[in-house]
Amino acid sequence: MAILPIDSGRYGTKEMLEIFGEQKKVDYQLEIEAAAALSQGEINLIPKSIAKDIARAARSGKITAKRIKQLEAKSDHDTAALVESLAERCKKESRPWIHYGLTSNDLVDTSNSMQMRDAIRIIQPKVGKLALVLTKNAMKYKTLPAVGRTHGQHASIISFGLKFANWAAEMSTHLERLDEIKKRILICKTLGVVGTGSLMGKNAVKVQDRVAKKLSLFPAKVTTQIIPRERYAEYIFQLSLLGATLEKISIEIRNLQRTEIGEVAEHFKKGQMGSSAVPVKRNPIKSERISSLSKLLRSQINTSFENIPLWHERDLSNSANERFTIPMASILLDEMIETMIRIISNLQINDKRVRENLYITKGQIFAEFVLEALIKKGIPRFVAYRDVQRVAFEAHEKKMNYMDALIGDKNILKSLTEKEIKDIFVPEKHLGASQIIINNVDKHVKVNAKKLS
Amino acid sequence: MAILPIDSGRYGTKEMLEIFGEQKKVDYQLEIEAAAALSQGEINLIPKSIAKDIARAARSGKITAKRIKQLEAKSDHDTAALVESLAERCKKESRPWIHYGLTSNDLVDTSNSMQMRDAIRIIQPKVGKLALVLTKNAMKYKTLPAVGRTHGQHASIISFGLKFANWAAEMSTHLERLDEIKKRILICKTLGVVGTGSLMGKNAVKVQDRVAKKLSLFPAKVTTQIIPRERYAEYIFQLSLLGATLEKISIEIRNLQRTEIGEVAEHFKKGQMGSSAVPVKRNPIKSERISSLSKLLRSQINTSFENIPLWHERDLSNSANERFTIPMASILLDEMIETMIRIISNLQINDKRVRENLYITKGQIFAEFVLEALIKKGIPRFVAYRDVQRVAFEAHEKKMNYMDALIGDKNILKSLTEKEIKDIFVPEKHLGASQIIINNVDKHVKVNAKKLS
Amino acid sequence: MAILPIDSGRYGTKEMLEIFGEQKKVDYQLEIEAAAALSQGEINLIPKSIAKDIARAARSGKITAKRIKQLEAKSDHDTAALVESLAERCKKESRPWIHYGLTSNDLVDTSNSMQMRDAIRIIQPKVGKLALVLTKNAMKYKTLPAVGRTHGQHASIISFGLKFANWAAEMSTHLERLDEIKKRILICKTLGVVGTGSLMGKNAVKVQDRVAKKLSLFPAKVTTQIIPRERYAEYIFQLSLLGATLEKISIEIRNLQRTEIGEVAEHFKKGQMGSSAVPVKRNPIKSERISSLSKLLRSQINTSFENIPLWHERDLSNSANERFTIPMASILLDEMIETMIRIISNLQINDKRVRENLYITKGQIFAEFVLEALIKKGIPRFVAYRDVQRVAFEAHEKKMNYMDALIGDKNILKSLTEKEIKDIFVPEKHLGASQIIINNVDKHVKVNAKKLS
Amino acid sequence: MAILPIDSGRYGTKEMLEIFGEQKKVDYQLEIEAAAALSQGEINLIPKSIAKDIARAARSGKITAKRIKQLEAKSDHDTAALVESLAERCKKESRPWIHYGLTSNDLVDTSNSMQMRDAIRIIQPKVGKLALVLTKNAMKYKTLPAVGRTHGQHASIISFGLKFANWAAEMSTHLERLDEIKKRILICKTLGVVGTGSLMGKNAVKVQDRVAKKLSLFPAKVTTQIIPRERYAEYIFQLSLLGATLEKISIEIRNLQRTEIGEVAEHFKKGQMGSSAVPVKRNPIKSERISSLSKLLRSQINTSFENIPLWHERDLSNSANERFTIPMASILLDEMIETMIRIISNLQINDKRVRENLYITKGQIFAEFVLEALIKKGIPRFVAYRDVQRVAFEAHEKKMNYMDALIGDKNILKSLTEKEIKDIFVPEKHLGASQIIINNVDKHVKVNAKKLS
Repeated sequence: MAILPIDSGRYGTKEMLEIFGEQKKVDYQLEIEAAAALSQGEINLIPKSIAKDIARAARSGKITAKRIKQLEAKSDHDTAALVESLAERCKKESRPWIHYGLTSNDLVDTSNSMQMRDAIRIIQPKVGKLALVLTKNAMKYKTLPAVGRTHGQHASIISFGLKFANWAAEMSTHLERLDEIKKRILICKTLGVVGTGSLMGKNAVKVQDRVAKKLSLFPAKVTTQIIPRERYAEYIFQLSLLGATLEKISIEIRNLQRTEIGEVAEHFKKGQMGSSAVPVKRNPIKSERISSLSKLLRSQINTSFENIPLWHERDLSNSANERFTIPMASILLDEMIETMIRIISNLQINDKRVRENLYITKGQIFAEFVLEALIKKGIPRFVAYRDVQRVAFEAHEKKMNYMDALIGDKNILKSLTEKEIKDIFVPEKHLGASQIIINNVDKHVKVNAKKLS
Repeated sequence: MAILPIDSGRYGTKEMLEIFGEQKKVDYQLEIEAAAALSQGEINLIPKSIAKDIARAARSGKITAKRIKQLEAKSDHDTAALVESLAERCKKESRPWIHYGLTSNDLVDTSNSMQMRDAIRIIQPKVGKLALVLTKNAMKYKTLPAVGRTHGQHASIISFGLKFANWAAEMSTHLERLDEIKKRILICKTLGVVGTGSLMGKNAVKVQDRVAKKLSLFPAKVTTQIIPRERYAEYIFQLSLLGATLEKISIEIRNLQRTEIGEVAEHFKKGQMGSSAVPVKRNPIKSERISSLSKLLRSQINTSFENIPLWHERDLSNSANERFTIPMASILLDEMIETMIRIISNLQINDKRVRENLYITKGQIFAEFVLEALIKKGIPRFVAYRDVQRVAFEAHEKKMNYMDALIGDKNILKSLTEKEIKDIFVPEKHLGASQIIINNVDKHVKVNAKKLS
Repeated sequence: MAILPIDSGRYGTKEMLEIFGEQKKVDYQLEIEAAAALSQGEINLIPKSIAKDIARAARSGKITAKRIKQLEAKSDHDTAALVESLAERCKKESRPWIHYGLTSNDLVDTSNSMQMRDAIRIIQPKVGKLALVLTKNAMKYKTLPAVGRTHGQHASIISFGLKFANWAAEMSTHLERLDEIKKRILICKTLGVVGTGSLMGKNAVKVQDRVAKKLSLFPAKVTTQIIPRERYAEYIFQLSLLGATLEKISIEIRNLQRTEIGEVAEHFKKGQMGSSAVPVKRNPIKSERISSLSKLLRSQINTSFENIPLWHERDLSNSANERFTIPMASILLDEMIETMIRIISNLQINDKRVRENLYITKGQIFAEFVLEALIKKGIPRFVAYRDVQRVAFEAHEKKMNYMDALIGDKNILKSLTEKEIKDIFVPEKHLGASQIIINNVDKHVKVNAKKLS
Repeated sequence: MAILPIDSGRYGTKEMLEIFGEQKKVDYQLEIEAAAALSQGEINLIPKSIAKDIARAARSGKITAKRIKQLEAKSDHDTAALVESLAERCKKESRPWIHYGLTSNDLVDTSNSMQMRDAIRIIQPKVGKLALVLTKNAMKYKTLPAVGRTHGQHASIISFGLKFANWAAEMSTHLERLDEIKKRILICKTLGVVGTGSLMGKNAVKVQDRVAKKLSLFPAKVTTQIIPRERYAEYIFQLSLLGATLEKISIEIRNLQRTEIGEVAEHFKKGQMGSSAVPVKRNPIKSERISSLSKLLRSQINTSFENIPLWHERDLSNSANERFTIPMASILLDEMIETMIRIISNLQINDKRVRENLYITKGQIFAEFVLEALIKKGIPRFVAYRDVQRVAFEAHEKKMNYMDALIGDKNILKSLTEKEIKDIFVPEKHLGASQIIINNVDKHVKVNAKKLS
């Protein structure tokens, strides 16, 4: 009888949920114990055979979260219980050397890094995939003229593909960001109680370098008891920013799917029960879910920032909330990306509606280009503007087509011929550099996506 | 293998968790169906016998979340599945009248209100209890002089009990806030698809009034498809504000428990394994947990605000995140209050350290009162201030007791006799109106707490 | 050369800006000194004649912010400078008694309360006015059928007036909230350095009661050096919540003004220069500004919450940011309300478009009512639903009017006559209890608005 | 009579304020017009001589914010007014070509980028300077043993210099982040109304590349009407993260300056008026100000995120709040860095108190090392732990020095000689790898700082 919708199975992909399970957390921490022992053995800080024995036990797959909970019930200390459960699987002579020189937070923080490492490994290829699906649509619709809207009003003509190109480019930019933050986020810390590595003395730095390498992490340069929480804020920020782009896309789809606009529609399962109100109604519920979860995802940023100024060498006021924020941010974003890939892959684009919408204002959307034509003929901008506006308002009142109104206006005809006017009212002529832009984005996205494989 | 620490059992009291379980949600919604049918029967909108049959089935205890999930798997619509499962338990002739005039959100939002109603029923008495525990300490320590600190620096003398009185008063104020918001938060809405109650016509308002009464809720005055999300923001705000007071208390305890201050200590279980570093070290981990969870709790406010401006008669972008925020806010706050009651009830207060700390500055904490004594003797404030400061700095440099330094200063002695000076250095004399204030708070808290029972 | 758009005059009404000017802050604080001296005189804590002299000087209107700055340049302490400037205007014998028993924060916090008192005095009548303007529209359009939209899709039929009724009711609810918080927000504190009122001894509470009364504030029950910051968070929250309702309205207007919807339009000044792109384009820029400022306003909540857990009897980490948040929240909300009153008062409502939009889906918006009619004829809900949906999809594909499709469907005709079907397709029949609801809201709003005058 | 403390001169350095003045904004936008005209001339999109004339006029220094305001009063459109004021200074034949192919937002967004470019130019060297000041202290105190505190409790021994090394390293990391984000933040956009560059056709991309180069910005890959607001969120985030590190430092200083700890103190001006309460009291008000402003700075993140999902090719709901957030974030962070440089440069470090504090627990801080010594002798960890703890508690109760208690304990003496015990109680022995770590940080910081010059 789960309560929160991550544990009830409502949100979360199998692969991402796995990273944050209890046993997996134990496995990560045991792997750190193994790597630490081996590293200490390699530089003869502890006997090599003992190092191997500890690593063997840690990796045996026999140490369970359940057993650790039993031991924790006695000691009230989870790391102590993990160490004890490891000791149970080691030879007697190895036991004093388990966890040597480490402190609880070396396990907690470094295993957090391993979780983030694996979460990024899951997320990054999906971002790449989404970028590719988006750029595919950008290329497909690059010559389709569509209404460009500002302030919710028809403003000018765009290539419909440009919408997708914007999103694809932003996804590609997120790939770059993800690459850049790894060196700051995926940190290994084994410097002990207060970051001096005191028990290992001068060798502490060497040990940490070796452990980091074994775990595919970056060694901490300097720490207190813990890895600085700026790093966690950066992880949460990056995931939230990615979520915000998904939110941006989802809101655009919800708007374009409005009954009155109808340019796109989320895929609707055959036989799916729609609204009881209007049977042909198709609610963009996947996009709405993304909008909803993005708000929640982003709210973690505040918490992660407030964890930064801990007292002295650390206090514990980050601990309870990080049990929520790190899994929630990772799981929710992953869910959102998956959903968005499905939305875009199956998005129904109604070319006909896209074209029809251009003419809702009876040609007034071409006014910008009439204005420019007049200016190029030498009419001062403000004079031209007043003419363009005057005819537009007259046409609007008389419910006339704007082109016809222009052709019927003596003043306009002084500067432009009927043919010149008619030539303006061809939407394909006003896509400007859209194709070049979209082609460039497509190349860029493909280069970035290729790096991932 | 739970992931989030609410489902893993780490945080959350039994009574609060129960409110947010899946079966309980079903039970709440069935109770709404029962109340709606009965109300419609009472005013002959539907046949009375049918109303009774629906209510009987709804309250039979035989409709399970499990069955509803099976049905949902087919229709992809959770409310439809609930209605169908209810139909399975009704007579054939009753079926057309189930859910009559209602829409899904009537169930969702009204059951949210029932959850909040029950959550407040759990929380409010605990807040009352905490207020009483706090005022008890306020009364107990009302004559104990203690250091008052501003900017982290010793500033003046307070009654140690005053700290508790401040917190008790704030808790009592929260009780008042909780009372005030109920009429806005605990809303019953059964006005159908877009808030017109269209299918029930003019009777819709009457039905809603009756349903509300049966559910101990307040009828909605006017709605769209949903209850306005201002109300949810107010609930989350109020819980977060309560959490912020708990956070304030927790940070004060953490500060007073510092090794260097040592005025209080969280209770430490006999035989509990402390820090491996300093065995006598006692970490205020309960207080730290409260600090940590408060940050998370408060972060829900942003999400709840962003849910307010939904589009038109509603969109769904509040839905997914409310599955988290409402249970999380309720469960976490409840956990925090419980923890704080335990902390305060068992708090160890070291009277001796409280007194000793008054003398860390070698009497300089009395300087404020020396200043006032000089002014009362007619010395202009700025002249007096410079004298008080001069002697203080000299004493500080010479590591002298401030009282002795004053007695040894010719200038001071022109205005104050040795006896007058000595009389100033009695901390008990400087508690001002503390007792009156604390007595007043105590009365107020007890009056408010009594209202709860 | 102002930088922020409050000081540049871009945002902020004259009356609200005045409250937060430097001289006004000085005047507030001098008024506290006057009230404190008079109160102390009344109970013979200081000589009556001296009390009067201090009050006279404080209220003389001759003490300027400029002079205080000069004095502050020397002492580096703003309250000390204010006291000194007051001393300059008092008789010599009065000087030792100025600021007697007070501390800087008594002035700072109590004058904050006075600012909030005056800000609420400005805001509350405007909220009342807005509620009245909204309910006027609700009443005017209560019988106009309009599309009700959920998920951005046409869902059902509402009374167009219901939109305004929802907003009016929420504004009226805000009036109630504003009334309720006053007793917690508008606090007078004159209990000195650490809240004990030490220098005034047992009389401290009496003095504070009297000062509070003179300033139309509520006396603090108990404080540290400062008024608890829960109170400030409550003020900022309430202003933000009000802002969120305005934001909700603004987003609805922006959506209804979309080129494709066109049901409303912000007033457009004759001769105003519109967009250069589409001359007839009318951008809802006032509503967009409200949307924009609401995000900024709400962001103050986090800051105000983080100010709650200050250390011990206070630290200063609230001070610098409160210099922004209290004026910004007050000034921005006031600006937003003013703007919204203007928007609603001049809103152009296009009745014709409202009606036309009902038929965009060729009658499918009536499907909900066809479904209910079938159920009332005894057809099981799910059978009826499939029929309703089937005909709807067929009509949609054939671009037929839904009513005609139903009339042409043999299966439907088994249950409903042609007349019965035609009777369903009359929008006015589906307004349900809208009129009753709107009338109730109207009464409620007027009662609450009347209380203000 | 300024209201907000940026315009009143309270916060903000001269150089940073200048960037955000009204005239400067005009100058930036004129520079864009100049760069656009010249670029268009270079590729013969407009006549070369006209391009030069426009650039000459734009850079003449004669176009004032005041004149633009006059013109804006008529047209109600600020960009139109700027273009008109530029036209006044151009030859008649140039006028039609001013602002050719551009839209208002090309100026607004690109000038925002220029402001951020210049803000980073101011901030980055200061971050470098702060890193150097911090590492200097790290090196100076690298061999000074100090208490390491966790949970506010004495936990172990650190090098006092390690505190500074942590901060220096984080500052150095911020330098890297600032470098990385430039390519995403400092964007030039001249693609016209809806990002197609329609009027310039295929040349639009070429023009933008040239303009970007002239302005030391990066050309946009693809845009709507505006630069995507992810970029602004990234700027605000980075500034806030920097602020959070400053906040972390400020809170540490405030804690270390506590009366009971006294390890550091902010510089106190000779003759400065301290607290009236305790004359020798020195409040860390600069650090408190940083703590306070950081909360405000961080609150801008939420606003910046909510600006990301604008509708379609843009809506205006970002505009009003960005007039606050971009200048506020830049100005406040700059103020905070300046303040922190002053704090650290003049910080009084009380070596004596640092050393004395090590002994507050009467040697118990060495317990960790006693434990390790026992384990190295072959005592099982849990047995050793119980022994260490037992003696510690006995010593604590008897108020004995821990070392003496150990020497007097028969059980301990079975494993450790008196000499071995005494050797443990030498703090300098427990600095572990601190020196190596600090030296590494110092090198790293200096390398990064050198890149800046």
